[in-house]
Amino acid sequence: MIISPRIGLDIGGTKIEGIALGPTGEITVRKVVATVPGPEAVLASTAELVAALAAEAGHPVAAFAGVGIGIPGQVDRAGGIVRNAYNMGLSTLALADELSARVGIPVSLDNDVTAAAIGAAYIMQLDGTVAYLNLGTGLAAGITIDGAPIRGTDGYAGEIGHLAIDPRQRPCPCGQFGCLETVASGSALKTHWPAGGDHPGRSIIAAIAAGDTEAELALEYLIDGAAAAIRVLGLTVNPGAVVIGGGLRLLGDPLFDGIREKLAGWADASEFIAELRLPERVVLLPDGSPAAAIGAAIAVND
Amino acid sequence: MIISPRIGLDIGGTKIEGIALGPTGEITVRKVVATVPGPEAVLASTAELVAALAAEAGHPVAAFAGVGIGIPGQVDRAGGIVRNAYNMGLSTLALADELSARVGIPVSLDNDVTAAAIGAAYIMQLDGTVAYLNLGTGLAAGITIDGAPIRGTDGYAGEIGHLAIDPRQRPCPCGQFGCLETVASGSALKTHWPAGGDHPGRSIIAAIAAGDTEAELALEYLIDGAAAAIRVLGLTVNPGAVVIGGGLRLLGDPLFDGIREKLAGWADASEFIAELRLPERVVLLPDGSPAAAIGAAIAVND
Repeated sequence: MIISPRIGLDIGGTKIEGIALGPTGEITVRKVVATVPGPEAVLASTAELVAALAAEAGHPVAAFAGVGIGIPGQVDRAGGIVRNAYNMGLSTLALADELSARVGIPVSLDNDVTAAAIGAAYIMQLDGTVAYLNLGTGLAAGITIDGAPIRGTDGYAGEIGHLAIDPRQRPCPCGQFGCLETVASGSALKTHWPAGGDHPGRSIIAAIAAGDTEAELALEYLIDGAAAAIRVLGLTVNPGAVVIGGGLRLLGDPLFDGIREKLAGWADASEFIAELRLPERVVLLPDGSPAAAIGAAIAVND
Repeated sequence: MIISPRIGLDIGGTKIEGIALGPTGEITVRKVVATVPGPEAVLASTAELVAALAAEAGHPVAAFAGVGIGIPGQVDRAGGIVRNAYNMGLSTLALADELSARVGIPVSLDNDVTAAAIGAAYIMQLDGTVAYLNLGTGLAAGITIDGAPIRGTDGYAGEIGHLAIDPRQRPCPCGQFGCLETVASGSALKTHWPAGGDHPGRSIIAAIAAGDTEAELALEYLIDGAAAAIRVLGLTVNPGAVVIGGGLRLLGDPLFDGIREKLAGWADASEFIAELRLPERVVLLPDGSPAAAIGAAIAVND
């Protein structure tokens, strides 16, 4: 693959991950900085990060085709505007135009999970219909076909975290009951296992090994909801691969094996579900892959 | 739109609907014949129908770019093979090659609901992300983006009828419980309202008006499940329009208004769901549109 060199940023609540892609599509530079909330701080730090990535790559910023940004919140890609990204103190920001004015090259925005889906398909060289399931603070998915994302009419494609189908019927801040996000997300882990503190994913496997039954139940809910999300994706778009990423990817095999076992049980119970071949099509995103930054870069000017 | 003239067939359990499309994409001929089950009968009658459509259009069959077929069952589009189309007595048939040998022009196959989705977007001139919900003997959906269908890895995209999320948890022949098809389909109407006979859709509205409470409950289940299917489509691909078609489309306003009310209630309960704007985006396929035949024709050689 030959592309124009470009820069990708994944702006999250705690850190901003930046990469530069060279002309053969490889990562030439990778840098991470802490997120400082608020519009001016986000603009200043991203502009500085773009300059630093270019400098380290040995080129002027103008040598790059553009900057692609993956960011949570409600993203208006056409207008380059992000709304309701409360984690980083942004209510409404014309991020694309404002940053472009500072760095001098085009800037495009994408929802962070959509960007990660594009990046996952790219990194793992997955063609055809691919689903990406992001288990982070929330739950959301991205769908790509031959690398191109389905964004939907208003950018809400893949928001299956608010599919209200969990039989436990727990209340969701969105107003519904039983959203998949109420059982299969980092915020759900915090609710169901308060002893895990602010980052339950870091300690839950050890706690389960030490006999914490509340932690065990929280993981069971997570596995149930993640598998249900994958079944929804399977029946809706019939992907050839389902990539699991997001912050909870760090749970590794206990999560991965649990999801595959659950899917295998459903396949055993239904010949139709078995034909979707979900247990063998689920894969983990390689550990530490900057999928959203890469995907945002790939989607520059597409 | 300028296209090469082509022929489209929608092969169903009771009838085969055929159309010819002229060079500006308009229907020039339309014919319907009864389905006679079995491989030889299906091949003979479809070959005859193709010849009759061409003759009535005033051209030799060879003047058409190809024949597109929409058919239920498991369709291998690449191989041109249909499997498990039990309604028409076909277990495995290389329909594309066999019919092509008889009519002398290329033949391509599509799942009937996928074909109807392509046809619906074409007929109604719907661009962007469009979902088509088919309420027939079963429940299934098709998704198109700018007219092009998402078929999925094995042709199972849109098979949301087997999403096991209905709280009534009724058993489904597929082996699961609570599939949307167990409440929102023609076969579900037959189960829940046996008094309606083999074609409950034809008399259920009158029966409800006459005070049949069993019929009323069956319709309520149908509306619930159809609305749930539309919410799944909304959260997965965020369509700009959701077209309702299939045999139960004949229920008209009682079905349509019921679905929109249900969706409006969910939107009232959740700001997030409201943003999907489903109540205003649901539309009925125009009555009597041969969507699957048109869609199959459009998809010839794509």
